[in-house]
Amino acid sequence: MCSPHCIETVKTRIAGESAAGVSRRHFLGAAAVGAAALPGCALTAARRRGGARVVDLSHVLSPAFPTFFGAAGISVEQLYNYAEHKVNGGVWHVNEHCGTHLDAPIHYSAAGATNEAIPVGDLVAPLAVVDISARAEGDADALLVPEDLHDFESAHGPIPAGACVAMYSGWERHVNGAKFRNTDAAGVMHFPGFHPDTTQWLLEEREVRGIAVDTLSIDRGMDGAFPVHYQWLGAGRWGMECAANLAGLPAVGATLIVGALPIQGATGGPARLMALV
Amino acid sequence: MCSPHCIETVKTRIAGESAAGVSRRHFLGAAAVGAAALPGCALTAARRRGGARVVDLSHVLSPAFPTFFGAAGISVEQLYNYAEHKVNGGVWHVNEHCGTHLDAPIHYSAAGATNEAIPVGDLVAPLAVVDISARAEGDADALLVPEDLHDFESAHGPIPAGACVAMYSGWERHVNGAKFRNTDAAGVMHFPGFHPDTTQWLLEEREVRGIAVDTLSIDRGMDGAFPVHYQWLGAGRWGMECAANLAGLPAVGATLIVGALPIQGATGGPARLMALV
Repeated sequence: MCSPHCIETVKTRIAGESAAGVSRRHFLGAAAVGAAALPGCALTAARRRGGARVVDLSHVLSPAFPTFFGAAGISVEQLYNYAEHKVNGGVWHVNEHCGTHLDAPIHYSAAGATNEAIPVGDLVAPLAVVDISARAEGDADALLVPEDLHDFESAHGPIPAGACVAMYSGWERHVNGAKFRNTDAAGVMHFPGFHPDTTQWLLEEREVRGIAVDTLSIDRGMDGAFPVHYQWLGAGRWGMECAANLAGLPAVGATLIVGALPIQGATGGPARLMALV
Repeated sequence: MCSPHCIETVKTRIAGESAAGVSRRHFLGAAAVGAAALPGCALTAARRRGGARVVDLSHVLSPAFPTFFGAAGISVEQLYNYAEHKVNGGVWHVNEHCGTHLDAPIHYSAAGATNEAIPVGDLVAPLAVVDISARAEGDADALLVPEDLHDFESAHGPIPAGACVAMYSGWERHVNGAKFRNTDAAGVMHFPGFHPDTTQWLLEEREVRGIAVDTLSIDRGMDGAFPVHYQWLGAGRWGMECAANLAGLPAVGATLIVGALPIQGATGGPARLMALV
């Protein structure tokens, strides 16, 4: 969807820019320089074009990118190189659960939807970003609890139907270091995640299609029984893990685009995640 | 970008729906039933939400999906199954140039951009759909020539900066049959594509970021020297091949989302292509 949130944002922006006498032609011409005007967002991660900006919520995926399971998530096999063949091309060998990636309902259920069965309209969603980074700063095992959503709604209004609720824990800042997995001496990982009571409340009280996290898992690192995976994916919803650049987004008003590949039978997989703000 | 085209579409729609007394609340509630109201678009390929609809421009990718090179483009290796492991997951072995997929500039150049180096703002683009299906119906070797763009602009106005120009040849209708590759006795394929004079004109006269086709290649099937690949990708632009559902789109006014994976060093790859209309 181009959500009502998006529509209102765009409408407001048009009104403001019309009032300022910015012509459509000037609008188009501003594309190349607009990035410099972005507040709170890395220049490399976003471009302003016309009235809205595009924020890249996917990390670059390489064999060095940290994974939940520890081993490299991808290898790229080069088949052709320009010097020799006048064409570059290759094959990816890629685990479905590495990088900024989708968990489809089938990942933790017996018969849930595979990638290609998720309605495309569910992959374009109003985005609610719930910031627990202050708490997570001092507690790697912090959870996004129902009270966080109640506080969020008190401040920003009800989470709309069709939305994605994203946890911003600040963990995205650790993606290039050992703290991203944060494994203790016993091999247990420690990073924030959703409390199953939170996703249960969303299932019962709100029509939310997906959740997203800036960590390796929608369950927190130490919750090895995967309660949120079984409950949330089992209920036909999707999850996005290892989201990037959530820090630069407003709490409400962005539209999330989940560029998940419609590979037949896939249980998820690397996806291009973007926000239109 | 949420393009000026998109903005104008949304603005018009808001005006119309406000005039009709449609409340925002009703707006949200209409999501579940809206698909039935879509004109000219397969119900499976689009969902209406709020004021805009989302059209899926990616084909489902499986080992059976036709490829330019003939062999299967993907295999999926199952690592875990729910019955045995209480989790489903696997690994894709996937050629970068199969399915609905991106050609990054590096694909046909010595030092062009790889996937992760394409600015995210270039992946959200006003979409111009140029329909040559009537001509291609009687001529599998039909080309999108400069005159087609001149006619297009006479009817719809200048192609805006940052746009993607898509060729709709009607070939998407043949995706499940031998006519999609349309190989003759000598092994030469026959399907429509861009004329290099057309892309040269776009390079010189318009600030277009990408082109898209509903066939296996931005070059027509018989043009085995890949003139458009070398010229267009070599100039730092991108291409999308095997786009789906272009038939249901307006000539102008849609916003294209190219959900290409930011895999380090990739020369392209399967991508989730969508349009917001």
